[in-house]
This record gives sequence, structure tokens and C-alpha cells, in this order.
Amino acid sequence: MQVDEPVRLPRLSRVAVCGGTHGNELSGVYLVREMLKPENRKEDGGPASLLMLLSNPRAVQQCTRYVDTDLNRCFTHATLNGPASEGAPYEIFRARELNNLLGPKGSRAAVDLICDLHNTTANMGLCFIAYSDCDWVCLHIFRHLQKQMPDTPMRFIHFDVSTKESYSLDSIGKHGFAMEIGPQPHGCVKSNIYTAMREGVQHMRDWVSCFNSGCVFEGGPVDVFTMVKNVDYPRDGETRNITAAIHPRLQDRDFCLLRPGEPLFQTFSGETVKYQGDEALYAFFINECAYYEKGIALSLARKRRVTVPSIHVQTDEEE
Amino acid sequence: MQVDEPVRLPRLSRVAVCGGTHGNELSGVYLVREMLKPENRKEDGGPASLLMLLSNPRAVQQCTRYVDTDLNRCFTHATLNGPASEGAPYEIFRARELNNLLGPKGSRAAVDLICDLHNTTANMGLCFIAYSDCDWVCLHIFRHLQKQMPDTPMRFIHFDVSTKESYSLDSIGKHGFAMEIGPQPHGCVKSNIYTAMREGVQHMRDWVSCFNSGCVFEGGPVDVFTMVKNVDYPRDGETRNITAAIHPRLQDRDFCLLRPGEPLFQTFSGETVKYQGDEALYAFFINECAYYEKGIALSLARKRRVTVPSIHVQTDEEE
Repeated sequence: MQVDEPVRLPRLSRVAVCGGTHGNELSGVYLVREMLKPENRKEDGGPASLLMLLSNPRAVQQCTRYVDTDLNRCFTHATLNGPASEGAPYEIFRARELNNLLGPKGSRAAVDLICDLHNTTANMGLCFIAYSDCDWVCLHIFRHLQKQMPDTPMRFIHFDVSTKESYSLDSIGKHGFAMEIGPQPHGCVKSNIYTAMREGVQHMRDWVSCFNSGCVFEGGPVDVFTMVKNVDYPRDGETRNITAAIHPRLQDRDFCLLRPGEPLFQTFSGETVKYQGDEALYAFFINECAYYEKGIALSLARKRRVTVPSIHVQTDEEE
Repeated sequence: MQVDEPVRLPRLSRVAVCGGTHGNELSGVYLVREMLKPENRKEDGGPASLLMLLSNPRAVQQCTRYVDTDLNRCFTHATLNGPASEGAPYEIFRARELNNLLGPKGSRAAVDLICDLHNTTANMGLCFIAYSDCDWVCLHIFRHLQKQMPDTPMRFIHFDVSTKESYSLDSIGKHGFAMEIGPQPHGCVKSNIYTAMREGVQHMRDWVSCFNSGCVFEGGPVDVFTMVKNVDYPRDGETRNITAAIHPRLQDRDFCLLRPGEPLFQTFSGETVKYQGDEALYAFFINECAYYEKGIALSLARKRRVTVPSIHVQTDEEE
């Protein structure tokens, strides 16, 4: 019987942890501020250099999601490289600054790994959100956190979008993912959510140190939720105001399987609106407050099992 | 043995239900919109006229708490009657409009009862918030809701502030209270919170109809939480940023008794900060997101039992 050799992957020399990409998602804001304190900046013995930053300082200052436009939709190739007029939104300028600092996106100069910290009002536990379901680095870090934090509900979400069209800050690193933790109201800090994020980031750093220093990580299965579609709230034809909320039987049940005919919304006059789709899918981002303006009441995903190979860092000669 | 005669109180001819005093507290916004629909405006047989309105339409439009300043702090005598300069905050003008419509505060022309609808991110269930602990109308309505909605945690909060200094919208009615329901993130609607508010408002309307048509309401005890003081988060001396969150043992435990020496905060580096007061008090508005800017991490109250007398509407001759 043949044992597969571990896949050899390049060292992760430069890692970035970003908070405040949305200025009112406060766990990441306070965690990055804490990590930036001089007494916490001592090297942890790992060979990776760690860059920490607040992505949208103006929005953080105002405790709003963004100032002019959603920063975390500004990292497409088109927005980063198109012409920028004088009166362009602040976030477009800031996206280009961040691309210079951490990218350029798609280049050899880009940082090796970006972990971008987010909160959601949805009851999603701790999620990794990434554009690839075969980025072994992200998937191994996810497996490591699952093992280290067995009491924290944890899922891996895959947005099936091409590199060119990927739009979020983490897409400018060679590897990258958003660490999304909820439920927490925006503009609020809850200890348990903050602590989960702090532990998650520490375990990620430990994993990177261990990987760089030559540990072999055994492969295995990971359940991946691949985004299929978004569903909007029922709305008034004229005013576009929503006319229903998430049904109480679905609220807070992120990652449950939603079957055709099951309750989806409850109108403000009390009627139930059922899910009309013809495929059972997994619901997530249920009632994320910041998505009302995007026309998203919840997202739906298909689940499948991905087998992750064992990995090992490349030696200097291989690089 | 002498049986006390019911206290006779004037008819409640004009009742106002207000939503969107804070534009991102959405249960009240959607409930008022629903109640304003032509098909829902048919008279319910009660003799009271019902006025429904969105208090801060500009903030509702933007889905923010306020545009320039907190509307619900603008109803003091000083702010309503002081000089208004050209560039004064929008909310000061709006407060005066509302005072003309529903007041004037302290006058015979004021509406008889104002119920102002609010949400909180704190886990407070359904609360009445009022400036009096001997307003028998408000206390009887509260008792009625307690009886009709036995599964909803319900408390009566008393802010011990003089009429002159009372600052909130409900203070311009002859009787008034805020109906505060949580937990719900601001900018979000949750079905269960919306439904509790809808039922609460309907039971209030039923009670007013019944009172006006001559029902006698038996007296009895009510537990009243009288606000004693607010407690701020620990903050950095220089930046004024908060340096700790509510301790996980206290978070979401609104109306628990906080004893001296018990955990109050957890700093972002993980240490516990204990409650230093010398009196055990009841904690509420724990981690209300909109109060970070006001320097309030939680409020503390004393609980006492108030005996409410039986009441009966005055006859026409008595009025």
C-alpha cells in the first residue's frame, strides 16, 4: 500500500491580521488594538513576520460599517486598477493603499496569508470564508482551529468566485480568509465572541509557526459549505421596504438544512412565507443586519466533504 | 372591614403610539408602518382616538439612531422652550414639532397617553420605562400585559427624574412610557421581538378601551426597578477607548442582582474587573450598544414593591 507523500508548500513568511475592515465590527478592532500594544508585540518565536492593521480607520473612528462605500467589496482587479477620479469614495483610495501594503493582488510581492477579522449579527459561530475549496493552507488552519477549540461551532464557507472577481481584503494575499464570528450586534463587543476571536487568531499563529518550522500536518476530511445563492426579504413593490422578517423557526438556526416548503419568513401581519426552492440547502448569514441594504435576508449553500492532503513546508532548495 | 373605593381617573381619550424615535430600532418602525396601513386603521370599537407616527423619519430613512443628536433626549422644558438658532440640530426642530402635535408638555392639551416603542441590544425582555412609580395608568397597563403575556419576561423601570428634567418623547403626554424590547441588534428585525411588541401594543389598546368603557381594574403589587446609577466601561486614559467588555458571567443576565465583589468586566487582555460598589443592585441595559457613546456599560437599580390601587374611569360629571 502506497502512502501519499505530503504536498510541499512554500513557507508563510509574511502574515497579516486585519481588523476594522468594517468599522463597527468591534471584536477585530479591539483585538488588533490589543495586539498592537508594545507589551504584546514581542516575537513569539515563530519565523513569520506579523503585520497587524486597522483596515478602515475612518469607519472605525465613526463606528460605522463604512464611510462612503463597503471597503470589503473594493478589492476586485477592476476597482484596484481602474482609473480613480478626484471625488472617488474614500474606501477606493484606502483599498489601493492596502493593496500597495499587502499586495499587489496576484503578485509575488503579496503577503503570504491574510486573516481578516469580521463579526456578524447572525448566529454563525466561527466561520472561515474563502474563495477556494482547495487552498490547503486555509483548510489546514481551519482543521487546526476545529481541533483546538472543540466547543466553538465552526464552519468553512466557500464563495465560488474567480480570483479576478474576488472582492474582499483577504483576496489580495497569496492565501487568505475572513474569520467571521457571531452573533454580535454591530457597534458592540461581547466577551465570549472577542475571546473566541483572540483564541482563533492565536491558534492560527501557532499553526503558521509550526508549519514554517517543518511540522507535517496530516490530511483528512473537511465539510465545506459552498455558497449557491442569496435570498432577499419580501419587499413592498413601491417603497422597497421589507414586509416580513425571518421566520422564528429559522432565526438563529444558521447551517440548518432548509427544505422546500419549510417556513422562511413571517410577514409583519403574521403570515408564514415558505421556502419555494426545489433543492434542500443550508441557510447561513440568516438576518445579517448589514445585508438588508444589499438585498440579502440569508444565503444558501451546498455542503460537501473535501479531503485535504497532508502538507509540509518546502525546503529552501525547493523554493 | 373597609374596602377601599377605586381611585377615579380621567378618561384616556387620545393615545399616541410612536415608533422610530431611534431610527434604527426597527420593531417600532415596522409596527407603526403596519398599523398605518388603511386595512389596519379601522376602528377597534374603543372610544379612544389613536395617533400613530414615526418620530424621527430622517433617521428612519438612514437607518441610524439619529441624524444630528439623540431625539429622545430633546424633550426637556429647556430644549423645547429655549431659543432655537438657525443651525440647530434637526432633532431639536423635530422635538418641537412633536411637542406641538402631542403636547405641549405639561399642558391640558397634551395627549392622554404616549407609548414610545424602542429596542435594545440588551437581553431585557419587555420593559416599561417611566418617570413615575405612582402613575396608576402606566402601572395598570403593565399589570395587564404581565397577565396577558405570561411567557414574556417583563419589568417596570422607574427613572426618578422630575417632570421638568424628563427628556424623552413619552414625557410630553399626560401619561407615558417607553416600551423597550430586546435583545435585538439595531438595524435588524427579529420576528419574536416584533411579535412581542405587536402583542404588547394590542393589549395596551385593549386595556385603554376597557378602562374608558368603565371596567374597574383591581389593584395589587408591582415590582418596580428604580434606576440608581450608570456604570461606564474601563477606558484608556488617553484615547478614551474602552479597555474591557462586560464579563461573560454578567452578559445577557439583565435584572440579575450584582453583588459587591462579583465579576463586572473582562479586559481585552483577559483580566476580571470586579464590581466595587458597596450595595447589591440589579443590573440592566447590560451592553446596550447605543450607550457606548454615552459612557454607559450598564445601569443599576434598586427593586421595591409598589402597591397599585384599584382604578375606575371618572364619570362625565366628575371630569
